[in-house]
Amino acid sequence: MTGKIRNILFVMYDQLRFDYLGCGGHPHLKTPNFDRVAAMGVRFSNAYCQSPICGSSRMSFYTGRYVQSHGSEWNGFPLRVGEKTMGDHLRELGMQCWLIGKTHMRADTEGMQRLGIAPDSVIGVRTAECGFDIWVRDDGMVPEGTDGSYDGRVSPYNEWLKTRGYPGPNPWAHYANSGIEDGRIAPGWLMRHAGRQANVREEESETPWLTDRALEFLHEQNGPWCAHLSYIKPHWPYIAPAPYHAMYGPNHVPAARRHERELADAHPVFAAFAQGQIGRSFHSDETRRKVIPAYMGLIKQCDDHLGRVLDRLEATGAMDDTMIVLTSDHGDYLGDHWMGEKMFFHECSVKIPLIVYDPSVEADATRGTVCDALVESIDLAATFVEVAGGEVPTHWIEGRSLQPRLHGEAPQDWRQVAISEYNYSVTPAAAKLRVSDEDARLFMAFDGRWKLIHFEGGFRPMLFDLESDPDEFTDLGKSPDHADQIARLYRHLNAWARRQSQRVTRSAADLAAMRGKSRRRGILLGVYGEGDIDEELLVKDVGRAERDFTREE
Amino acid sequence: MTGKIRNILFVMYDQLRFDYLGCGGHPHLKTPNFDRVAAMGVRFSNAYCQSPICGSSRMSFYTGRYVQSHGSEWNGFPLRVGEKTMGDHLRELGMQCWLIGKTHMRADTEGMQRLGIAPDSVIGVRTAECGFDIWVRDDGMVPEGTDGSYDGRVSPYNEWLKTRGYPGPNPWAHYANSGIEDGRIAPGWLMRHAGRQANVREEESETPWLTDRALEFLHEQNGPWCAHLSYIKPHWPYIAPAPYHAMYGPNHVPAARRHERELADAHPVFAAFAQGQIGRSFHSDETRRKVIPAYMGLIKQCDDHLGRVLDRLEATGAMDDTMIVLTSDHGDYLGDHWMGEKMFFHECSVKIPLIVYDPSVEADATRGTVCDALVESIDLAATFVEVAGGEVPTHWIEGRSLQPRLHGEAPQDWRQVAISEYNYSVTPAAAKLRVSDEDARLFMAFDGRWKLIHFEGGFRPMLFDLESDPDEFTDLGKSPDHADQIARLYRHLNAWARRQSQRVTRSAADLAAMRGKSRRRGILLGVYGEGDIDEELLVKDVGRAERDFTREE
Repeated sequence: MTGKIRNILFVMYDQLRFDYLGCGGHPHLKTPNFDRVAAMGVRFSNAYCQSPICGSSRMSFYTGRYVQSHGSEWNGFPLRVGEKTMGDHLRELGMQCWLIGKTHMRADTEGMQRLGIAPDSVIGVRTAECGFDIWVRDDGMVPEGTDGSYDGRVSPYNEWLKTRGYPGPNPWAHYANSGIEDGRIAPGWLMRHAGRQANVREEESETPWLTDRALEFLHEQNGPWCAHLSYIKPHWPYIAPAPYHAMYGPNHVPAARRHERELADAHPVFAAFAQGQIGRSFHSDETRRKVIPAYMGLIKQCDDHLGRVLDRLEATGAMDDTMIVLTSDHGDYLGDHWMGEKMFFHECSVKIPLIVYDPSVEADATRGTVCDALVESIDLAATFVEVAGGEVPTHWIEGRSLQPRLHGEAPQDWRQVAISEYNYSVTPAAAKLRVSDEDARLFMAFDGRWKLIHFEGGFRPMLFDLESDPDEFTDLGKSPDHADQIARLYRHLNAWARRQSQRVTRSAADLAAMRGKSRRRGILLGVYGEGDIDEELLVKDVGRAERDFTREE
Repeated sequence: MTGKIRNILFVMYDQLRFDYLGCGGHPHLKTPNFDRVAAMGVRFSNAYCQSPICGSSRMSFYTGRYVQSHGSEWNGFPLRVGEKTMGDHLRELGMQCWLIGKTHMRADTEGMQRLGIAPDSVIGVRTAECGFDIWVRDDGMVPEGTDGSYDGRVSPYNEWLKTRGYPGPNPWAHYANSGIEDGRIAPGWLMRHAGRQANVREEESETPWLTDRALEFLHEQNGPWCAHLSYIKPHWPYIAPAPYHAMYGPNHVPAARRHERELADAHPVFAAFAQGQIGRSFHSDETRRKVIPAYMGLIKQCDDHLGRVLDRLEATGAMDDTMIVLTSDHGDYLGDHWMGEKMFFHECSVKIPLIVYDPSVEADATRGTVCDALVESIDLAATFVEVAGGEVPTHWIEGRSLQPRLHGEAPQDWRQVAISEYNYSVTPAAAKLRVSDEDARLFMAFDGRWKLIHFEGGFRPMLFDLESDPDEFTDLGKSPDHADQIARLYRHLNAWARRQSQRVTRSAADLAAMRGKSRRRGILLGVYGEGDIDEELLVKDVGRAERDFTREE
């Protein structure tokens, strides 16, 4: 492994917990292929997503910018026209940027129309697809309800299932994500069905299907490329095809990481989530005993198909010049802290798995190591720009390149806190709490030990000390003894909030070049007489007045 | 005066101090035409610009957004492609939006190219001109220096001067903004020449020239329109044509509003400005005695030509259905507080004159009154949208409509602090203080009495109490007795900094409509069994499985 990096394989799994990997320390789940990449590279053990929800988190991965900066604060909030993504940055450096799978991107069609960007032009398509060229896009979400389909776009996977003989208008819902009960379709949406065998052949389920598309890409593309291989699994519906549906059982389900203390005198916003329908469903161990084995089976399937990709990279020699990144957009509570889903800032939700393999010789020293530096998902865009040979455009990308870390260096000026944000304005919790859109927002400021959760709308903050309370059971937000810690983290959060995030038309280099420039262009301020200024700066062509226009001729 | 509003005449003067008007309380300067509009409308006595520098302040006026939101943090920082301006909002409501004069807009040509926006298309021109249609654009800044011209674009006024027989390549510099000394051109840039008669006929100077363009516009355009009539004067170079150059003398120059106390133990950033070349020049009363009478003469000339516009509006009856706004982008220190120019947050720099005449009957009750509500320059964009019959798009425009104030109402939920920002990273002060780009930023939070000035980069704050210290001579930033006031204003500043400013692709109405939407589109979260969900929400078409794909046939 001595090559220079030519390509970047940026693999994302959806809703994969950092601790549901063998190398992540899971007691039962073995993931030899994730572990194999970890053994070749660096596993980042303190990596955080910018928002614990798919769409917003992904827009931060893709732009390298915080949620407050790009504005896509929830699923389905379009990324505003003009935001630059890793695709835009990498193409400028001569590297293609392809999508294979999910982004959760919603196009800013109103902005595109206002600016006259044709949706069918190359620029239009890239703008609508947040900067990626599309090898295949499938967000893996094709449910239908009383108001119709969640995702208006056609799902290539769903269409492919039809060509394989799966009947009906929506085999994604009724076969790939359903089981069978008494000969009837048993929707995977109902978690009581989670333990069933999905009514799809394993080789025709979503993970192998997308892996096949990735292998086609590897076969046909020479690069240099960055390929975003983005799986929907182990994201819900929680139902796995055979044999993965039966690999794990209730005896592999760890006890829920929760404590009665959390519900006693609970923070009202936390309580609204814990007592919402999702939270209540996961209070039941019956739910957990059904859901978690299916979730583990889906991860096991992901690991097996990751193995197919790794084998191909080794067989073709591409392993010598391809950076590999394995990560997730956020975690999954699975009943921990009395919650399901994500949407809050406990470790199992906001911390992400992040494994990076760098084939270059400079990275030999760090192979198989664990890095506990405070890392954010926005750091990947910065890393990829540097890998592609560019300088990180700090007026756009707010993340830090991980390349020094991969090379065993520890920059002295590294961030002191990780920030994550969550806008819950469209959730039932906001309605229940009668909180306005502006106020239905949460911020996390975490320094590696102390985790502050700030709530807009006049709520008190929450605080956890992960050193003395690694399980995050004890909320210190009301503790007078911790007022100083809270104040300190607020100073970090507020300094972050006052940052420049929109000065995107002027780089740091531009600013340096501007110093004194206006003077050399004739703007002479504070000059009383000739003595106050260098001769060379005096206005040119000043000589005898050719005419005196102040007198009538 | 009982008409409904059809048109908006939005008049801006550049660097006009709020207190250099008759109605603003100036002891010597009589401005009957400004006063005439004030008598017909409302004068806002606590109006503040979003940044005390031309370009950034104007981009806030035009977008209705704070500087941190639009990112154009200094002169020549292009307004990023995709920012919506009053022109975009008003055209959607059927109102044209024209420019007559100065904007200081720099086009984001890089962004336009990236998005494939043709510069010569209608969309391209409007994008490059921050949303205005151009009647005539002239920024009134045509100096030249060792590095060439400050403003690359051709100045229509400069070209017009040539057609009038003014010789040389740059009559703007050498005639309109210069005097004569011993038959030689005496550049207005040298303030020792400020008292001279400009070497241009009064009727050929900048203010009457632009007024003539405005009168042509009024003659030819029917509307509904919003016209931004934007004068360069009384902005430097400080030199006025006859007879205005001789109307005021040293005896009309008020004593500088400054105190030795300000320089003793001064805040380092304030000191850097006060001790810079501009500040030092204005420490001399000789400079002030030359500059201020010329500045007053230029304002007097503006007032006379405003009278021509008002007379025309009355003669044509347009006064009955035209809203008139008179304001400025910022003030001018003129030696007060040991400074010249603007660039800091004392009242004479950050407070702006704002006079609004509303012809509608609803405004009859407030004619000739003074409103002391805390107003920001971003409020005008909101006001104009409401005048044009629209609802203020709060996901874009951060200002508040002034229409209720004009109608004598006082909204209960009005802002508690006014915010202003200044990025001094390209100034000599930043170089002198060795402050980084990120840290060379100032914020003002003013609640009507207490004014906090926050500095990034670890400097202490400044604080003024305008009730006990209306002259702002006493910096309380280090006073332990005022720690609570400082903390309170910081809470306002930081809550402002954490606001949503980029959620521009989703309106408040969109968010309200989204609540529960995903559920009705088939996303069934937290559902264990059929009992957990309304029948109608169950996935459609779920019936007998047509085939069982989990078994080999």
